[in-house]
Amino acid sequence: MFSFECDYHEGAHQSVLLKLIETNMEQLPGYGEDHYTREAADLIREACGCPDGQVYFFAGGTQTNVTVIDSILCPYDGIISAETGHVNCHEAGGVEYTGHKVLTVPSEDGKIAPEQLRKLLVDFYDDEAWEHMVFPGGVYVSHPTELGTLYTRSELTAIAEICREYKIPLYLDGARMGYGLASDASDLTLKDIAKIVDVFYIGGTKVGALCGEAVVFPRGNAPEHFFTIMKQRGNVFAKGRVVAVQFLALFTDGLYFRLGEQALDMAEELKQVFLERGFRFYVESPTNMQFFVVENELVRKLHEHVGFEVSGKYDETHSILRFCTSWATTREDIRRLAGILDEVAR
Amino acid sequence: MFSFECDYHEGAHQSVLLKLIETNMEQLPGYGEDHYTREAADLIREACGCPDGQVYFFAGGTQTNVTVIDSILCPYDGIISAETGHVNCHEAGGVEYTGHKVLTVPSEDGKIAPEQLRKLLVDFYDDEAWEHMVFPGGVYVSHPTELGTLYTRSELTAIAEICREYKIPLYLDGARMGYGLASDASDLTLKDIAKIVDVFYIGGTKVGALCGEAVVFPRGNAPEHFFTIMKQRGNVFAKGRVVAVQFLALFTDGLYFRLGEQALDMAEELKQVFLERGFRFYVESPTNMQFFVVENELVRKLHEHVGFEVSGKYDETHSILRFCTSWATTREDIRRLAGILDEVAR
Amino acid sequence: MFSFECDYHEGAHQSVLLKLIETNMEQLPGYGEDHYTREAADLIREACGCPDGQVYFFAGGTQTNVTVIDSILCPYDGIISAETGHVNCHEAGGVEYTGHKVLTVPSEDGKIAPEQLRKLLVDFYDDEAWEHMVFPGGVYVSHPTELGTLYTRSELTAIAEICREYKIPLYLDGARMGYGLASDASDLTLKDIAKIVDVFYIGGTKVGALCGEAVVFPRGNAPEHFFTIMKQRGNVFAKGRVVAVQFLALFTDGLYFRLGEQALDMAEELKQVFLERGFRFYVESPTNMQFFVVENELVRKLHEHVGFEVSGKYDETHSILRFCTSWATTREDIRRLAGILDEVAR
Amino acid sequence: MFSFECDYHEGAHQSVLLKLIETNMEQLPGYGEDHYTREAADLIREACGCPDGQVYFFAGGTQTNVTVIDSILCPYDGIISAETGHVNCHEAGGVEYTGHKVLTVPSEDGKIAPEQLRKLLVDFYDDEAWEHMVFPGGVYVSHPTELGTLYTRSELTAIAEICREYKIPLYLDGARMGYGLASDASDLTLKDIAKIVDVFYIGGTKVGALCGEAVVFPRGNAPEHFFTIMKQRGNVFAKGRVVAVQFLALFTDGLYFRLGEQALDMAEELKQVFLERGFRFYVESPTNMQFFVVENELVRKLHEHVGFEVSGKYDETHSILRFCTSWATTREDIRRLAGILDEVAR
Repeated sequence: MFSFECDYHEGAHQSVLLKLIETNMEQLPGYGEDHYTREAADLIREACGCPDGQVYFFAGGTQTNVTVIDSILCPYDGIISAETGHVNCHEAGGVEYTGHKVLTVPSEDGKIAPEQLRKLLVDFYDDEAWEHMVFPGGVYVSHPTELGTLYTRSELTAIAEICREYKIPLYLDGARMGYGLASDASDLTLKDIAKIVDVFYIGGTKVGALCGEAVVFPRGNAPEHFFTIMKQRGNVFAKGRVVAVQFLALFTDGLYFRLGEQALDMAEELKQVFLERGFRFYVESPTNMQFFVVENELVRKLHEHVGFEVSGKYDETHSILRFCTSWATTREDIRRLAGILDEVAR
Repeated sequence: MFSFECDYHEGAHQSVLLKLIETNMEQLPGYGEDHYTREAADLIREACGCPDGQVYFFAGGTQTNVTVIDSILCPYDGIISAETGHVNCHEAGGVEYTGHKVLTVPSEDGKIAPEQLRKLLVDFYDDEAWEHMVFPGGVYVSHPTELGTLYTRSELTAIAEICREYKIPLYLDGARMGYGLASDASDLTLKDIAKIVDVFYIGGTKVGALCGEAVVFPRGNAPEHFFTIMKQRGNVFAKGRVVAVQFLALFTDGLYFRLGEQALDMAEELKQVFLERGFRFYVESPTNMQFFVVENELVRKLHEHVGFEVSGKYDETHSILRFCTSWATTREDIRRLAGILDEVAR
Repeated sequence: MFSFECDYHEGAHQSVLLKLIETNMEQLPGYGEDHYTREAADLIREACGCPDGQVYFFAGGTQTNVTVIDSILCPYDGIISAETGHVNCHEAGGVEYTGHKVLTVPSEDGKIAPEQLRKLLVDFYDDEAWEHMVFPGGVYVSHPTELGTLYTRSELTAIAEICREYKIPLYLDGARMGYGLASDASDLTLKDIAKIVDVFYIGGTKVGALCGEAVVFPRGNAPEHFFTIMKQRGNVFAKGRVVAVQFLALFTDGLYFRLGEQALDMAEELKQVFLERGFRFYVESPTNMQFFVVENELVRKLHEHVGFEVSGKYDETHSILRFCTSWATTREDIRRLAGILDEVAR
Repeated sequence: MFSFECDYHEGAHQSVLLKLIETNMEQLPGYGEDHYTREAADLIREACGCPDGQVYFFAGGTQTNVTVIDSILCPYDGIISAETGHVNCHEAGGVEYTGHKVLTVPSEDGKIAPEQLRKLLVDFYDDEAWEHMVFPGGVYVSHPTELGTLYTRSELTAIAEICREYKIPLYLDGARMGYGLASDASDLTLKDIAKIVDVFYIGGTKVGALCGEAVVFPRGNAPEHFFTIMKQRGNVFAKGRVVAVQFLALFTDGLYFRLGEQALDMAEELKQVFLERGFRFYVESPTNMQFFVVENELVRKLHEHVGFEVSGKYDETHSILRFCTSWATTREDIRRLAGILDEVAR
């Protein structure tokens, strides 16, 4: 298998594995009461610049989204998301399973525009029947989005200000956070994010970990008894070390950030490989997911040699292809891809 | 830390870690569509003697219990459990979170007696108001139980027959399955269990894995679209390999069974260490959890040197202590414990 | 208060009240086991031409929708609805509270077009990630719709055929059923509906009852233990007679149908009153809800004399007004409205 | 049918019906925004001595219990109830359907003893694993209880004080409130109850109404947007008048209290009828439900002439019978029952 289909094809970065090996036989208390969990949380708090932050480790993204969203909403609240949001599309109705509606705004680029958010909120409270409707009770954004795009600091700040005005929480899904932070296209740092939003998660699964995501409530603002909420939904590892030790490795000496840069460097090379061969972008993405418009016959041939995602139909004769790089992508992989393109396009 | 408090203090057995390392950089499809997931499932099916079985990998026990139980019940059903059952006590109301009541039967030893089950079912349908009550819609047993006890083949068969008569599913929680299978006190093999019950899980977290449990529907009887049910509740790993590769190691060359035996051998030695020193059992457990009655002043002193669980109060001056061995317990550990006992009891 | 704002301003039709009075002191068993419940169900079965039908009485529409939809879906299913559907807009997220997503199709007229439904289903199963998404597990239509429009027999049949092809249930919300059946704009009879759809309800609250809706599973196809499902959600009246006796009155000598006709006659006169005075329709509705485009200044003045709903903004200077007639609307009411229009428009 | 089986055999008290008739054709706004709803709430606030109280009208008891309990608990909370509590036994798992466990205390007489409550709370926080367990997050009591017994003012106050100490709400189910208030066996008035508990409901269905219960949050302490919570669960009548007008009648000129007294007078006569004929009590109940021990052969014969509930088996040859009086029971009914006893016992 040789594939750019997604950014979770490989296992863990070698430093992550080594840390797991190194700590393996140490006897530790369960359920996140071990010292590695504390140390990993400390490193994350430091990287986020939020000494009062609370950090919780989850196994995966859907679980994280569903539990966080349910825990920050009132029972009558829905969560506002771009139509393209992961919680609206690819979590099998996890949010609804917890009793909440996803209130969508149309989106071309995966982002919510501040003015869209304001309009939704103004319209809701203008409606005479608002008490019979789902309350817009929180906002979900992803950064990078599902389309690889990024918020700027001013965009995210504008959204956060509207949330504050309406007293609703802002939640940022950072499944691919590392790939967003490394991009030049956004001026948002991890510390900015921790200042601006109410809760976010730093994705491990897609950025060098075997599994795991780190939820941060940056101002000590976790819902009461959040541990028990996690437990109730089956989100707590008996061996809390499983995820904590991995984040310990990722946040030691800035590894997490370097993995992001590595993936973006490779994305840049991948772009060139395509552009040099006359392909065109579907959208210009500043992160590790690149979208191209490719003629269908060629798509078929390519698929014999390399994995990628067909994101959709472009027109009758072309498709939109998604190629992802990751922390594990090497220059050799890019060269091999270039060779395949040359071979196939001949 | 030196502790017999539980059986999940260490990381993973070395063979499990090695398999993770060995397969780490292989590119694999996500969400359980990789070949290791298939191979692990094949080995499990073979070990269970159920060629038509369906195998699903989960991250942990609570998640497994909650999702399996909800998926096999009708909306108006409750699940029957011993009062001491894990789902009734230590899962923070996970079953209730999915909308179902736990219908309890009193239990001294952690087990449900067949006659208790029959009485509950007869009484329910005898009650004129049954349609206003929670239906007894399934049975939950654990093997070993939370008290370390075991069902015999004839006991489990008797329960299964009642379930069949009432057309309700029987689910077996095998969080510590390996420690049950290795015990002489039960004549139940893994194949027996697969024949007798409707669904069960083979616990990895407590028997050599970093994390993970393998659910088996032995007769191809999984609820429709069980994958999507898992996904909706956030139970699916993007990197399905995380758990699958571990079970691949555990079910290669009977490692899982050997780990169980290792723990039981150590439990036997641990017993002797206590008995030789004049301690007495609270209950005689045939598995890896051993319960002793210890005088409170001694408990306090012991706690300075070794970890264990205080399971409860025995009388005004004595407590019930639980000591667990595991796959990771060594003869050296037992010797050290003996030394501590000698030291402290002087 | 003088109002055309909705069709539930008055209490019950006199025959309904009389039946309640007449039967009031008779001692009856509770929870729907009384003979009036049986008789009302018999009359409804007869009116629907479905001798094997099962009839259940609920207190109100939202409760009915939410319980029926949840009971006919699998846990991973969503319900397909027009964007304008009541379940999507004005039930405070009741469907999501039961764990299901509302999958919407855009709609100008409140209806789902058969081709829209087919496209949604085809697209779903064409998507490679379908197992990660909410399944299109059932269809919700309302007749009349929230915009007063009606399905024709061939439209509803086409939808039902697609449902059958995909093995998903079709549910029809008949909150205003009486006003749809009386309209010339649809060729659907109650018996047609009972033949075509899988479950529907006959609305009482808006058509002459104090409260109550009658759910019909026309082919004995109610989910198992539907009574207990209702009970669990608090939908069962201790005095089952409360709703049953009202439906007994409504389905004696065709009263329900006559009430529908009365409302539509009055709607016709109301239309004329507006058209004769130069107002124009927003949409031409064939039922008891009429929509007009009215200049904002005039809206303000009108509101001093008569109640109506402002359904939305038409343009900067005009609004869309909704006027409802009902079983209780009299010719005198229409005359009074005409007088107000003359007075105000001067 | 001639029956003492329950207290909801008849329709509504004549004054209630009259009020419905009298107000029937008045045009009123929907969803509880009408003046009768306000007036009924005012009368209830006055009767309860709580000028800041918030009053909400529901259709029935299970619905009321389920919605109130869910709305006052945190997601990780269970509700403490006597084992015999209605929410634990006869609501088909409604509380669990909303995601909460019922935490039971054993009870012979249907009541929770203050010391039982304290022990449960102390034990919970003493348990090292408390964060893995269902929190005792609220207390449910019924008054009268399901066994017809009553709390005294000092008992209820003691419970309330423990609740305040642990900062958990106390909820009182008053399905049969009228029959409790009229009893000499309790010194609790409606005003006392409103002072002591955090939320309660005044039952209408069993005390003279066709349907309906009035929930009171006596200190303006309703959960935020409680209306929308009700709406979401299908608890809101479009015609809010349906229940409000009935309570208007019940709380005009103390009718509600008189109906309670009438039922208790009849219960007193019923007791005498049994005692004079040599029957013995199962328990001595101070309210409208009376329990007798009757020989099985006689039970069979009695059942041919009069309705009653067989509450359980007393011994091999005797059963426990429950006879209820209600607001509708007349002296003539008691005489007729006496005649039947004489006839049958011969």
